[in-house]
Amino acid sequence: MAQGKLLYAQSGGVSAVINATAAGVIETARDKGIKVYAARNGILGALREDLIDTSKEAKANIAALRHTPGGAFGSCRYKLKSLEENRAEYERLIEVFRAHDIRTFLYNGGNDSADTAYKVSQIGHSLGYDVNCIGVPKTIDNDLVVTDTCPGFGSVAKYTAVSVREASLDVASMAETSTKVFIIEVMGRHAGWIAAAAGLAGQGADQAPHIILFPENVFDETAFLAKVKATVERVGYCTVVVSEGVKNPEGTFLAESGARDAFGHAQLGGAAPILAALVREKLGYKYHWALPDYLQRSARHLASKTDADQAYAVGKAAVEFAAEGLNAVMPVIVRLSDEPYKWKIEAAPLQKIANHEKKMPKNFMSKDGFGITAAARRYLAPLIQGEAPPPYGTDGLPMYVTLRNTPVPKKLRAFKAG
Amino acid sequence: MAQGKLLYAQSGGVSAVINATAAGVIETARDKGIKVYAARNGILGALREDLIDTSKEAKANIAALRHTPGGAFGSCRYKLKSLEENRAEYERLIEVFRAHDIRTFLYNGGNDSADTAYKVSQIGHSLGYDVNCIGVPKTIDNDLVVTDTCPGFGSVAKYTAVSVREASLDVASMAETSTKVFIIEVMGRHAGWIAAAAGLAGQGADQAPHIILFPENVFDETAFLAKVKATVERVGYCTVVVSEGVKNPEGTFLAESGARDAFGHAQLGGAAPILAALVREKLGYKYHWALPDYLQRSARHLASKTDADQAYAVGKAAVEFAAEGLNAVMPVIVRLSDEPYKWKIEAAPLQKIANHEKKMPKNFMSKDGFGITAAARRYLAPLIQGEAPPPYGTDGLPMYVTLRNTPVPKKLRAFKAG
Repeated sequence: MAQGKLLYAQSGGVSAVINATAAGVIETARDKGIKVYAARNGILGALREDLIDTSKEAKANIAALRHTPGGAFGSCRYKLKSLEENRAEYERLIEVFRAHDIRTFLYNGGNDSADTAYKVSQIGHSLGYDVNCIGVPKTIDNDLVVTDTCPGFGSVAKYTAVSVREASLDVASMAETSTKVFIIEVMGRHAGWIAAAAGLAGQGADQAPHIILFPENVFDETAFLAKVKATVERVGYCTVVVSEGVKNPEGTFLAESGARDAFGHAQLGGAAPILAALVREKLGYKYHWALPDYLQRSARHLASKTDADQAYAVGKAAVEFAAEGLNAVMPVIVRLSDEPYKWKIEAAPLQKIANHEKKMPKNFMSKDGFGITAAARRYLAPLIQGEAPPPYGTDGLPMYVTLRNTPVPKKLRAFKAG
Repeated sequence: MAQGKLLYAQSGGVSAVINATAAGVIETARDKGIKVYAARNGILGALREDLIDTSKEAKANIAALRHTPGGAFGSCRYKLKSLEENRAEYERLIEVFRAHDIRTFLYNGGNDSADTAYKVSQIGHSLGYDVNCIGVPKTIDNDLVVTDTCPGFGSVAKYTAVSVREASLDVASMAETSTKVFIIEVMGRHAGWIAAAAGLAGQGADQAPHIILFPENVFDETAFLAKVKATVERVGYCTVVVSEGVKNPEGTFLAESGARDAFGHAQLGGAAPILAALVREKLGYKYHWALPDYLQRSARHLASKTDADQAYAVGKAAVEFAAEGLNAVMPVIVRLSDEPYKWKIEAAPLQKIANHEKKMPKNFMSKDGFGITAAARRYLAPLIQGEAPPPYGTDGLPMYVTLRNTPVPKKLRAFKAG
């Protein structure tokens, strides 16, 4: 690779395994004698020259990143505008890179980040500074194209499938005199990947979950209520998984379709309570609902080993690609076989990935729209395989690491960003 | 013990470890050559003569109960009235016991069940049939007196502390540009035991959780908002744990204090969204909220080993007490030392336990009412110690058992109950 340092930044919503990617990056770079800086709070840190010297961190702490959720260097939701709209930001990035001899930029994120990474990969030349940029995949939404899956997704998928199985055992044992309908709301505003993964909790029509509501399908109240009723009458109870992104025929989110908070505003978040109210009103069943929210994407204690391994592998590969002098690529996961699941990492052009969105295939949803198909199972099943629990302390809590995050002395004037 | 069979019934809300108690009962009874029947759906099965012959179950399946959440034989919410109010039910119980030569009844539940168990322990004599009754403790509410803790509580406590730690790492890494206030609602309508356990997630004023709202304290909006604001300004974000039982100064549940569902009814469940709306309205911070509901009490994958061991031990002891001919007792956990946590099982009179409720001591809550004290930590810390993960299949899911639950042929006329 070009001489100089490597800058690593985390972007967008964090996950249970994004720090495993950071560990892959830093450990591989150390092996190769490459110095790694990290940007504090993602791209904002790069713009503000708020950099962290990861060489000040003990080896054991970097290793512990592999089992620590959250974003160890901080992340942010901040999308760089186009070069035309905000050239000053790109010039500032190059200024920071130049001041610290940064010759490789690794940007670890989802769709927006792949777009930014591609833009950065192209500006060095026009701004007269030689820097390579590599996108590193991360998103629980599983919506990056080209790659078989996105690090972060497999662990949310596992958390969701396990939670649905456990809670449904609870409901099943009490259903005669207590809750008959249990509703769990999962993340996924645009695509039903996580909702689909919940389907792995059971097999056949009688095992939970009995109904999955995908954001790909418009909510059909009549069909939904009919299926709830039929399931309760046949099985004794009904477990419903609803994606936060499910919409009414009018095109508004179910979550915003009725409830008003104490201040009279539409209550944000909560398709589950809306459905619960509907079930009570129209069918009279006792219900409970759950909304795990951030718990689902931070549950490192229940990570998928497949996911944790892939997260590490993309970090490692990114540094290897950088060492080979590659620019404008992303390490992607290529599926070699379903069973046993075999995969490898390859370099794919960022241009093919940026600004595309992987939709869930239509043939992943059953005919009635309330379940998953064999094709979906074939794709999803390997992604939740294997356990990779964190070490626990004698206090009974996982031993997650907090880094020292030693700042790199600044050399430039301040720059307002964010 | 008296000759004859033993009848085991699960009662009230189930837990991640109530089946470990069932395993303790059945395995110990098998060792002693005692035949165990289980009542389907708790006391209702006993009244309906809907009994299960556990001897038809393979040894491996009984062993697997030790790591399977939910209630393997079904449970129910059904409280027997007093002997004066409904003598027919007690007479029916004795009729069923007599028909199947049941000489010991083990009732596995919380406060109401201890009361029922005590009543049953007293009626055999007056109705001319010799039967011993032993209460077996189980409740995630941790509100039984005499016993140091209640099987089921330690695992909810561990789930809650781990989840708060994980989600807070997520929030902390995104706080500058995203969520600043994260609210998680936990179970506990009358006492703040679970909310207090969340406090184990961190130490000191800056670690999450920053605010705990206990049902023991009336909600003070001004003090709450001031602490949220101060925490966000000092730490960058604020994690709030709220017990579902928190009440307004007017004495109504916070959860029912404003939100209306689409049908105009007060929305049930959800103190967290109420607080979130308040934070948005008064402080303008971006928020997220989570409501794990049944996930917290069924999360066997994250059970406390201490809790799972105690759950098994009370089941084992119950059979041993029965074999010694004890009546009207409950095996309770006696704490011998805090650090290392040492405990033993003793028999305590049911009469001392029934109709009492263990409140959380006032000195467990910090002066400002928003945190836990060293005394609380000393009590709570041992209860979440140790891990006891279930075995996982190659599919990446815990291998939970579903029993065959072979019915015992009926001998009596039908009886309407429930």
